[in-house]
Amino acid sequence: MLYTEIPSQRPVTPLLDAINHPQQLRQLEQSQLAQVADELRQFILYAAGQSGGHFGANLGVIELTVALHYCFNTPDDRLVWDVGHQAYPHKVLTGRREQLTTIRSKNGLAAFPARDESEFDTFGVGHSSTAISAGLGMALARRYQQNPCDVVAIVGDGAMTAGMAFEAMNDAVAHDADLMVVLNDNDMSISCSTGGFAKHLASIWEQGQFVNIDEQGQAFIQDHPEWNYTSRLHQSATDAADNLFKAIGFDYFGPFDGHDVEQLVQVFNALKKRKGPRLIHIYTVKGKGFAPAEADQIKYHAISKLNTAPAKAEPIKTAPKYSDVFGQWLCDEAALDNKLLAITPAMCEGSGMVQFAKQYPERYFDVAIAEQHAVTLAAGMACEGLKPVVAIYSTFLQRGYDQLIHDVALQNLDVTFGIDRAGLVGEDGPTHAGAYDYAFMRTVPNMVIMAPKDENECRQMLHTAYLHKGPTAVRYPRGNGLGVEIQQQLIELEIGKAELLLELNTEHDESITILAFGSRVQPALDAAKQLTSQLDIAIRVVNMRFVKPLDEQMIGDLADRTSLFVTVEEHAVMAGAGSAVNEFLAQAQIVKPILNLGLADAFLAQATHAEMLRDCGLDADGIQNSIEQAWLKLVQTV
Amino acid sequence: MLYTEIPSQRPVTPLLDAINHPQQLRQLEQSQLAQVADELRQFILYAAGQSGGHFGANLGVIELTVALHYCFNTPDDRLVWDVGHQAYPHKVLTGRREQLTTIRSKNGLAAFPARDESEFDTFGVGHSSTAISAGLGMALARRYQQNPCDVVAIVGDGAMTAGMAFEAMNDAVAHDADLMVVLNDNDMSISCSTGGFAKHLASIWEQGQFVNIDEQGQAFIQDHPEWNYTSRLHQSATDAADNLFKAIGFDYFGPFDGHDVEQLVQVFNALKKRKGPRLIHIYTVKGKGFAPAEADQIKYHAISKLNTAPAKAEPIKTAPKYSDVFGQWLCDEAALDNKLLAITPAMCEGSGMVQFAKQYPERYFDVAIAEQHAVTLAAGMACEGLKPVVAIYSTFLQRGYDQLIHDVALQNLDVTFGIDRAGLVGEDGPTHAGAYDYAFMRTVPNMVIMAPKDENECRQMLHTAYLHKGPTAVRYPRGNGLGVEIQQQLIELEIGKAELLLELNTEHDESITILAFGSRVQPALDAAKQLTSQLDIAIRVVNMRFVKPLDEQMIGDLADRTSLFVTVEEHAVMAGAGSAVNEFLAQAQIVKPILNLGLADAFLAQATHAEMLRDCGLDADGIQNSIEQAWLKLVQTV
Repeated sequence: MLYTEIPSQRPVTPLLDAINHPQQLRQLEQSQLAQVADELRQFILYAAGQSGGHFGANLGVIELTVALHYCFNTPDDRLVWDVGHQAYPHKVLTGRREQLTTIRSKNGLAAFPARDESEFDTFGVGHSSTAISAGLGMALARRYQQNPCDVVAIVGDGAMTAGMAFEAMNDAVAHDADLMVVLNDNDMSISCSTGGFAKHLASIWEQGQFVNIDEQGQAFIQDHPEWNYTSRLHQSATDAADNLFKAIGFDYFGPFDGHDVEQLVQVFNALKKRKGPRLIHIYTVKGKGFAPAEADQIKYHAISKLNTAPAKAEPIKTAPKYSDVFGQWLCDEAALDNKLLAITPAMCEGSGMVQFAKQYPERYFDVAIAEQHAVTLAAGMACEGLKPVVAIYSTFLQRGYDQLIHDVALQNLDVTFGIDRAGLVGEDGPTHAGAYDYAFMRTVPNMVIMAPKDENECRQMLHTAYLHKGPTAVRYPRGNGLGVEIQQQLIELEIGKAELLLELNTEHDESITILAFGSRVQPALDAAKQLTSQLDIAIRVVNMRFVKPLDEQMIGDLADRTSLFVTVEEHAVMAGAGSAVNEFLAQAQIVKPILNLGLADAFLAQATHAEMLRDCGLDADGIQNSIEQAWLKLVQTV
Repeated sequence: MLYTEIPSQRPVTPLLDAINHPQQLRQLEQSQLAQVADELRQFILYAAGQSGGHFGANLGVIELTVALHYCFNTPDDRLVWDVGHQAYPHKVLTGRREQLTTIRSKNGLAAFPARDESEFDTFGVGHSSTAISAGLGMALARRYQQNPCDVVAIVGDGAMTAGMAFEAMNDAVAHDADLMVVLNDNDMSISCSTGGFAKHLASIWEQGQFVNIDEQGQAFIQDHPEWNYTSRLHQSATDAADNLFKAIGFDYFGPFDGHDVEQLVQVFNALKKRKGPRLIHIYTVKGKGFAPAEADQIKYHAISKLNTAPAKAEPIKTAPKYSDVFGQWLCDEAALDNKLLAITPAMCEGSGMVQFAKQYPERYFDVAIAEQHAVTLAAGMACEGLKPVVAIYSTFLQRGYDQLIHDVALQNLDVTFGIDRAGLVGEDGPTHAGAYDYAFMRTVPNMVIMAPKDENECRQMLHTAYLHKGPTAVRYPRGNGLGVEIQQQLIELEIGKAELLLELNTEHDESITILAFGSRVQPALDAAKQLTSQLDIAIRVVNMRFVKPLDEQMIGDLADRTSLFVTVEEHAVMAGAGSAVNEFLAQAQIVKPILNLGLADAFLAQATHAEMLRDCGLDADGIQNSIEQAWLKLVQTV
């Protein structure tokens, strides 16, 4: 069925309602599976309308998910979902149907598979391209334990470009591991896939039809469990071109229609008897079964909740997203300097680069999901005197960390990093948190690291980073700015200079100095104002701007007048920006109490960004409260 | 010529002596190149005997290097050497012949290509698999500047297994970049290559002979610059198997004999006229031309200096290497617990795992150069209840950082990391420094991080890490232990417990407390003893053992009796272990002076490990001196 609307009422799904464990699915007749898939699709449409969340990818794997749980003995057989944003149907079939509408919300289901949520979630995930490695680990472990099971890694075509998928395939062949990889090819990662791999898949398609097992004799297959037939069969689909998977040593089967659930069952049942590394190539349509999503796959990658509340409109957010501020700056800077090139690892839309890509196609480089390569590519460009800008999420820069050190910073190359989604990221949960970038970057020589207090300063900092000769990073949060006016003029800030924003109650001798970083500057200001009504003490707030180099002059000058320093940041306290302040105070032999506020040493489950900040004590009230407690304790001690 | 001895006298090399710039090489006749290559081989043999250093790889690329500089207009054309430990011949031909004997020593030539050493060194390197990304960046930059040049990335077969090489090839095709990749296939990375990629290369070889251009008509080639001929030619070598490079979209040529310098010249001259991404597959022999190295390629990966000093023997080092302590522990622990599996990314010998690999082949996993995969493979194994141990150098763990966070720590999986070469690494220089691991690991929740004071404690810590349920790292230095007795019994340490080692001059009220980490414990002890003769003050030394969790109890208890805290570590001060102590003091409102000793915020050029430690003030004298200065300054201030 092709649906055209997201239902606001729960659909009637009698077969689905009876499945609380895949064992119940496995008791159905094959002929009933198409109906299960149809009910599942309706239910996903309904639930996604209630909760928002990833959408297109889930609709694309309905038949696949039904077939996998039908054919494999889950949870003992291992399904390993790559990326995991297509695991909604899997969650529904594995006992979490009634919770699905809570997905991505606080105390609800996680956005991705999570080991502590269900025994069916064999491997927690969120970043792409880990499933073959993890699945191989499981397969080798089970072989070693002489307790083998079927292990299936389900990987999208977009995720296959990441190097670690290739590393894992290489190694699977080394061990002749009994591992099945399902390549779910929808000709899409989040943006469109690019590169040789995508062309390779396209060349397979160009050769014509799906391989169709039914047509060519199911009976034959039943009688030939050794599958010589399929071995020959897959040749026919790839005779004309070299096959990458076969070259690396996988047995290759397909391509198959990923929406023909009964045929998928035939394929899996037959191929699970084979040994060794096998790749099953299926073709699916992102957004399958929902007409608007099939027509605009990028738009329907994820959706927002249906607005079920009547009339009462949400306040219109006029403040632009930080991503869009980055994107606008990129276009403006590019207009001024033709040395600017921009690189994204498959995050054109997320990083706000759509306009730039359109306006400067010859200066725009989407390298696919390939963070390691993205960073070193920039290094190579910088060697030729150009000025590359790498747009990357904080959490994904972790993938390019060695390249940041070894290829960029060590050679002091002129690369600008626009680091998006830094800090807490809300609904995507802990896999996507950008909580470690200050720590892992500031320990590296030659780095300059900034964090803006608002969207206008973000623009200025990006400009400053771009002009600075050497590796420079600007890290900004997910979501919208504060709504301040954005100056069109590009203004260069002085490297390493902080900004004293506020001094209150200066008549008091004792004072608290808050050194605030990035997104926590505004809440620190609010907290300071609240504090002056609570404590008889002077209080000042500094927008630190630079995590590296720190404005040591400013801190040193304020030290004499300061009874308590406070640092506050949207980053782990451990090794973070506050820790950099501690180091300076120690080195300068400034012996003062200091309170480091930031994220505690724990991974945080999903909630809204605002909920998470409140729970971490990093909103204005939390900051005020922590400072007050510390001050009172300090006064008592003295 | 096949040589059998490393000459102790400088050989006669008239052609080579006249080459101070490749321009002079390019003025020779093609027929003279074989002699240049022979002279170069003799010179490299001689120089390596004088300086020690990488050996086999350099002998293998003599003809290749001569041919490249002969055919390409270096330095304007870009040669990008992968890994870079095969760049000695390149250095000789580019004006650094007379300095070659200084390689890897303080103020001498760098071990690897380095941009600040020569304009011919287009890209600094040390880690593998970066050359295609960097070369692609250069090619795209030059295309954008409408100033194209030839860019050649020279990559070994071992380096091709790393995912980023695949990411870069994929992207090169996306851009149809004018990039030549020379695959220098010697069937070796440092250990033997493993996996599907190696099998793929082997399958190409199995099909028979080298492609030989001479035989099949040089004249034809001269007349056909469009090289339709070669396009057909390469088919013949790979008809029987799918070709991975062609599948990904590269034009593939070869395999060619990499020691036939004149033929290489033909190949390069012809193929440099082609456009688009091209891969030229050559076969070389590691250690070529030196009989003992050809016979034992692993042993001759690198060599030590010839002992030219007469008679006066070096003191025999009886203390085992930390790598060997790791290797012995691995075998011992494996004997006790059959859940132990061990993983190395192509560093079997370097990580001390030869014995384990022999004794427990079914529990030993060399995944090739593939650090990302190595870490997530371990995560997958841990999901099945096994207890994987990942042996990895600190500098290479940077490649698996995201996997450490996202796949291991977030899921709190039971993976033990044996982190070798942590701290300064001496002659390999800044690319291989392990100076950032405390910082990038301690910011991650669930991590337990230890550093041993000596080889006996290293063994105990590895055992402790192994028993601890969760992600645990033991980081130990390059080189030999202190010569202490190693207890055979495996002893479990208490997690998070430090060890008070020494208290001197306790009759004084004022005291200095040194909190020492890992390799700096012993020098801190020595410094403390020296200090007591200088200062009238009590002094104590704590072996902290744990960077995370810190022994907060111990620090808190000592605080009352401490006038100055000192932290000392072989790691960057920024965000390091001392910084963790600062954070605790701040959080506990212990307001005391603290001196953080460690590595300054700079990349350090190569020297011996001892020279580097002395230059950084991290030997006993340096530590003593820094503490004395800090104390005197503190006393003056008060």
